[in-house]
Amino acid sequence: MKLPRNYTLKEISLIINAEINGNADFIISGLNEIHKVEPGDLTFVDHPKYYEKALNSDASAVIINKEMAETKGKMLIYSDNPFRDFNKLTACFSTFQPGINMISPSASIGRNTTIQPGTFIGQHVSIGDNCIIHSNVSIYDHVSIGNNVIIHANTVIGSDALYFKRSPEGYEKLLSCGKVIIEDDVEVGANCAIDRGVSGDTVVGRGTKMDNLIHIAHDTVIGKNCLFAAQVGIGGCVTIEDNVILWGQVGVQKNVTIGSGAIVLGQSGVTKSLEGNKTYFGTPAYEAQKKLKELVYMKQLPELFSNGHG
Amino acid sequence: MKLPRNYTLKEISLIINAEINGNADFIISGLNEIHKVEPGDLTFVDHPKYYEKALNSDASAVIINKEMAETKGKMLIYSDNPFRDFNKLTACFSTFQPGINMISPSASIGRNTTIQPGTFIGQHVSIGDNCIIHSNVSIYDHVSIGNNVIIHANTVIGSDALYFKRSPEGYEKLLSCGKVIIEDDVEVGANCAIDRGVSGDTVVGRGTKMDNLIHIAHDTVIGKNCLFAAQVGIGGCVTIEDNVILWGQVGVQKNVTIGSGAIVLGQSGVTKSLEGNKTYFGTPAYEAQKKLKELVYMKQLPELFSNGHG
Amino acid sequence: MKLPRNYTLKEISLIINAEINGNADFIISGLNEIHKVEPGDLTFVDHPKYYEKALNSDASAVIINKEMAETKGKMLIYSDNPFRDFNKLTACFSTFQPGINMISPSASIGRNTTIQPGTFIGQHVSIGDNCIIHSNVSIYDHVSIGNNVIIHANTVIGSDALYFKRSPEGYEKLLSCGKVIIEDDVEVGANCAIDRGVSGDTVVGRGTKMDNLIHIAHDTVIGKNCLFAAQVGIGGCVTIEDNVILWGQVGVQKNVTIGSGAIVLGQSGVTKSLEGNKTYFGTPAYEAQKKLKELVYMKQLPELFSNGHG
Repeated sequence: MKLPRNYTLKEISLIINAEINGNADFIISGLNEIHKVEPGDLTFVDHPKYYEKALNSDASAVIINKEMAETKGKMLIYSDNPFRDFNKLTACFSTFQPGINMISPSASIGRNTTIQPGTFIGQHVSIGDNCIIHSNVSIYDHVSIGNNVIIHANTVIGSDALYFKRSPEGYEKLLSCGKVIIEDDVEVGANCAIDRGVSGDTVVGRGTKMDNLIHIAHDTVIGKNCLFAAQVGIGGCVTIEDNVILWGQVGVQKNVTIGSGAIVLGQSGVTKSLEGNKTYFGTPAYEAQKKLKELVYMKQLPELFSNGHG
Repeated sequence: MKLPRNYTLKEISLIINAEINGNADFIISGLNEIHKVEPGDLTFVDHPKYYEKALNSDASAVIINKEMAETKGKMLIYSDNPFRDFNKLTACFSTFQPGINMISPSASIGRNTTIQPGTFIGQHVSIGDNCIIHSNVSIYDHVSIGNNVIIHANTVIGSDALYFKRSPEGYEKLLSCGKVIIEDDVEVGANCAIDRGVSGDTVVGRGTKMDNLIHIAHDTVIGKNCLFAAQVGIGGCVTIEDNVILWGQVGVQKNVTIGSGAIVLGQSGVTKSLEGNKTYFGTPAYEAQKKLKELVYMKQLPELFSNGHG
Repeated sequence: MKLPRNYTLKEISLIINAEINGNADFIISGLNEIHKVEPGDLTFVDHPKYYEKALNSDASAVIINKEMAETKGKMLIYSDNPFRDFNKLTACFSTFQPGINMISPSASIGRNTTIQPGTFIGQHVSIGDNCIIHSNVSIYDHVSIGNNVIIHANTVIGSDALYFKRSPEGYEKLLSCGKVIIEDDVEVGANCAIDRGVSGDTVVGRGTKMDNLIHIAHDTVIGKNCLFAAQVGIGGCVTIEDNVILWGQVGVQKNVTIGSGAIVLGQSGVTKSLEGNKTYFGTPAYEAQKKLKELVYMKQLPELFSNGHG
């Protein structure tokens, strides 16, 4: 990319807080990857295999992760992570605004918050400062999101509860009147779905991190600094206290409580409330050590039966 | 929001079918939440904690869920659910049309059907009356959707089957030529995926309700008034009869039939056809009572072996 | 649809490489389904039940899957799959461009590649020739996609790893600096999520096919011609060699290797590395035959205990 105006090497280095080796006043006019550089460009290299190529290229300056005296006429910017810093510069100078956002006029969006294209934000939504809402996210009405929150692409927040009253004619829908509240410093992965509360609110506590394809049902309250691996599913009206870790594909039945600091191993199914600060496994889930011991014995069943005990 | 024109309190109350206490001819000029009201506005309050605040605010009228004589000069509209009725008014007066839909010209959309922004509707799709298709949904070609259907955000309907013929060179794709047919009164959650049929059609029967992150494979036929919890996955060419309940994360193998009225408990894996009107559990799934009894005995294995039977 | 210009029956038949029965010079002016045809139109029929209806309709020509002499004045195009060929013609003549794509200027898109509406493509993404990227897909920066790749709707490629360092104050995010590389001939289902690498790259090998709602974590390398059924979840830094089959809802823990040609049965949880060319089942997964045998014995536990062994 061409830079929007000329920058000195010094100015560039300040943006990424890096040391330079070369003429601080040299004018940088573009950022390009190694295979399409031209004089005036800054490029980057982060693998010894490509050092030679970068130093012999047409670029005028190189972000590099090795300090070297011999520069073959190139100006150098030293970085422990050239890729990251090159990205940072690209993002900084980019005026790229493809596509459109779909943000309702009653939504409020904080300072320094980025909404990527294709994202829909409903009525009366509030989003705090320094958030990143990735592309094609759908946020229903009346969702409240704090500061420093990251929502990955195609996630849905605020969808209706699966909450029906059975009648002789079929299912009658009970309306969801609650909200979703996502506190500060939360990260939600891609393609997740978090339902709004039916009567109360669905809450994700401060600092909690979730991976992809996770389902959180209505009125569930999740504490602070929890960690959920991919494809976890949590039923309605569940309470998950602080610092709980749920590994991949764990399912949690509605109306239970998981105590602070509990760890539930992958694919377990939680069917009743669990005390904190213990590790659980299995469906139904109970103490992992006990469950794993039983599984060891289970492997001995064929021998047991063949010994005439069957 | 400012109302598009002035309305009397009486007119407003008729929209939500509610009783009023105060001057029926008073002019309401705006709808706003309690923290940003001004004179002429209608607001709402639904929790005793905030009654005082609402009655002392600058709003001229309040939707409230308690009948009271003393109104501190406010006009009241009584409602058993002020939040719902305030929303209803907001929706009624909203002329908000953010973003765009992406609807192919050969699609037909019924009366009183809402398509939210970002939703893509392919060729030869038909959608009935009174439907809500939420944001960022993708509907492939040749899908047919009945009346009163709700599709939640980011769900995909009509994607290709995972259907390949193995050859020495790899997998050869067999084209999907069938459709997806969604009958009246169905609700599909957020981030689901329903594949089109390969030869026949994939069908979701009238009144069936599905939660989030559900997968329905090609040519599967689902009966009426079924209920599927989140993260259920159903293989290809499955028949699910009426009134079947599948709890969270249940998996159903291809080509099986689940009889009418069957209930399959959470995380079970259905590997063969199941009779109706029974409850199943486990992977492979069989009668829940039997499975749960075995799990009780399994817990006694350590004791059994320590008694010298191992 | 009206055709953009008039075509002869002969020209039409050449597009789908089919034999005709009738006047090769007849002018076809439109393509329509049987219930809305008019003279000049070409329609199709693929079920004997509707042959009569098609031959008695107002259409001038019919694509049909039965050779017949008697045509009731209709011109016929013979096809072994009229639906497919009608679709092919529809696609061929369609100039339909609803909605918009959201493609960053630094992305490179190959020849004959289709990007459906609502899809977001980030910076420095490259996509090869003959690909189909369906609607509402989100592709983050620095993703590389080969030739002949199909990505189904609402899938996310290149999202950040769930990769955090625990500190007393909570979780500190480690930045993802790697890419996602998707090789030639891969198909990815709807609503999947493939994370970018943290330090290396996440790779999906040539010819691998994935169903819907699949999660692939950071730095995981998947071989060639693998087949993953729906809702599979694979942790970070996993190596899956060539020709591996994972059935529905299988979970794979981080850092393990699955050998070439291994098959893992549905809902299994892979907790350690598995040798190739064997079939596995259970959580934790081990050889399926062994596991299934144990399950048979488990069913006999109630009898065993009732025989006085408990």
